[in-house]
Amino acid sequence: MLVILSGGTGTPKFLQGLKEVEENFSVIVNTGEDLWLNDLYVSPDVDTVLYTLSDLINEECWYGIRGDSFITHEMLKKYGVDEFLRIGDRDRALKIHKALLLKKGYKLSEIVDIERRLLNIKQKVYPMTDDKVETKILVNINGKIDLLKFHDFWIKRKGNVDVLDVIYENSIYSKPLNNAVEDIKKSKAIIIGPSNPITSIGPILSVGYREILKKKKVIVISPIVGTSPISGPADKLMKAKGYESSPYGVYKFYEDIIDIFVVHNTDNNIKVDCEIYSTNIIMKNKEDKIRLAKEVLELVK
Amino acid sequence: MLVILSGGTGTPKFLQGLKEVEENFSVIVNTGEDLWLNDLYVSPDVDTVLYTLSDLINEECWYGIRGDSFITHEMLKKYGVDEFLRIGDRDRALKIHKALLLKKGYKLSEIVDIERRLLNIKQKVYPMTDDKVETKILVNINGKIDLLKFHDFWIKRKGNVDVLDVIYENSIYSKPLNNAVEDIKKSKAIIIGPSNPITSIGPILSVGYREILKKKKVIVISPIVGTSPISGPADKLMKAKGYESSPYGVYKFYEDIIDIFVVHNTDNNIKVDCEIYSTNIIMKNKEDKIRLAKEVLELVK
Repeated sequence: MLVILSGGTGTPKFLQGLKEVEENFSVIVNTGEDLWLNDLYVSPDVDTVLYTLSDLINEECWYGIRGDSFITHEMLKKYGVDEFLRIGDRDRALKIHKALLLKKGYKLSEIVDIERRLLNIKQKVYPMTDDKVETKILVNINGKIDLLKFHDFWIKRKGNVDVLDVIYENSIYSKPLNNAVEDIKKSKAIIIGPSNPITSIGPILSVGYREILKKKKVIVISPIVGTSPISGPADKLMKAKGYESSPYGVYKFYEDIIDIFVVHNTDNNIKVDCEIYSTNIIMKNKEDKIRLAKEVLELVK
Repeated sequence: MLVILSGGTGTPKFLQGLKEVEENFSVIVNTGEDLWLNDLYVSPDVDTVLYTLSDLINEECWYGIRGDSFITHEMLKKYGVDEFLRIGDRDRALKIHKALLLKKGYKLSEIVDIERRLLNIKQKVYPMTDDKVETKILVNINGKIDLLKFHDFWIKRKGNVDVLDVIYENSIYSKPLNNAVEDIKKSKAIIIGPSNPITSIGPILSVGYREILKKKKVIVISPIVGTSPISGPADKLMKAKGYESSPYGVYKFYEDIIDIFVVHNTDNNIKVDCEIYSTNIIMKNKEDKIRLAKEVLELVK
């Protein structure tokens, strides 16, 4: 039994390899970027994990279903409806499904469990919490301090703002998911995938998992090679939270829970107070993904 | 200036002919079958009139857009979501548009006016009221008396129930639309299209238009030839309301407002206390529609 913590881009790539060589794992997924958009409930990272594990994922943008059409989206645009995320017709159904069941009173975790069964996914997929936690970017825009939602920051503004901090709003009032905590207790090790520490993994840790992981063997796969994040806005956000944008910064973020740090070959000289494993962590194709998964599974033993 | 009262099947056919020969008319449309369905606002007759006047209508079922796809609908079915109306991907956008603007506080009439402009429709299209009026079918099912919504009665149960009466719920608390009333006052004549008197025109008349029409020249095109309704469940519902299912029954329903009754050739021997005009009222093709429109326009003069 293994538990993986995941965001929406780097870790899903790792999951593609892992599921080819290991069946028995659960994934705890960031929900800090969840939003209601025109009556749809959009849980971007959860849906990406669901589509990844069911082999439907559109790997061009790690969002939505491969080969989907955008008929309703384009019509909405003509009608002047601002659907700022581009939602496909097949993908829309999953977001309608979540919206309807949430309104009926189902918990998000119950809905995601129904969906992973509908998509024939063997692994458990857990939203990090059933509580509402929102990742907010504290910014300074022309001298005005304000909070932006992640999508406003990253999709609408392409990250081009002065970031002061990142807040996991409502995290102090939120609880980790019971079933996820149970799986962590049963697992040999916890793998933190190569996702953005600040916006993908940070929200998960913020709702109570950080304390729980202190007692477990935690393997972190670096999302940064040299000083460059493999994808996404980790650079700016790491710095805003007071961390270097480097594998060392990643280490510092996880310092109190990390046991083994998986870094890229070229970063093997890093000085940290935990075990280091260096290999090729850039996953360009399926072979890379399977090889990395096998190597990490060796570290679990 | 002309005003047409319309439901969702027979009258739109007439409108197809009318718009080819006359530009200056407004349509008041039944909203008694409107419903919220999975966060969509479905106004079946209004949308059919909008799609008819913009030449998008799917004439096979007089519902939705010609050549539309059903990608989201099919995915929803896989996810176990009961979308009992088959809503196309293009059509869905119009229903989302209505839902979003209603939630923002727009009146239905304001939304429909935005939509008819977006669809480049020259004519005004008015939902009969901005109030909520629901057509309910009073039924006896195995000895149990209950009220069914029209869609439950007609789509889910195919009309196969014992009908006691038809109620326009909340009509006593509802008002006609001001702009529609103004257009009626300015119009040379009001044309009641060949729609089901009970479920399509009855709800319109129930919110105050019947009194207003008593002072106007009203031309009714019969929706019934011989004893057969041209389409839909008029037969059973006419009888439940105490009217014959015949042109004579239609006449009796409109007795206090009708001035000219347009019936099919074979019904020209009908005995009624108003002017009769008999012609071929079965609209099989565009030529039929244009010819009937021209003949009715002659009656307006």
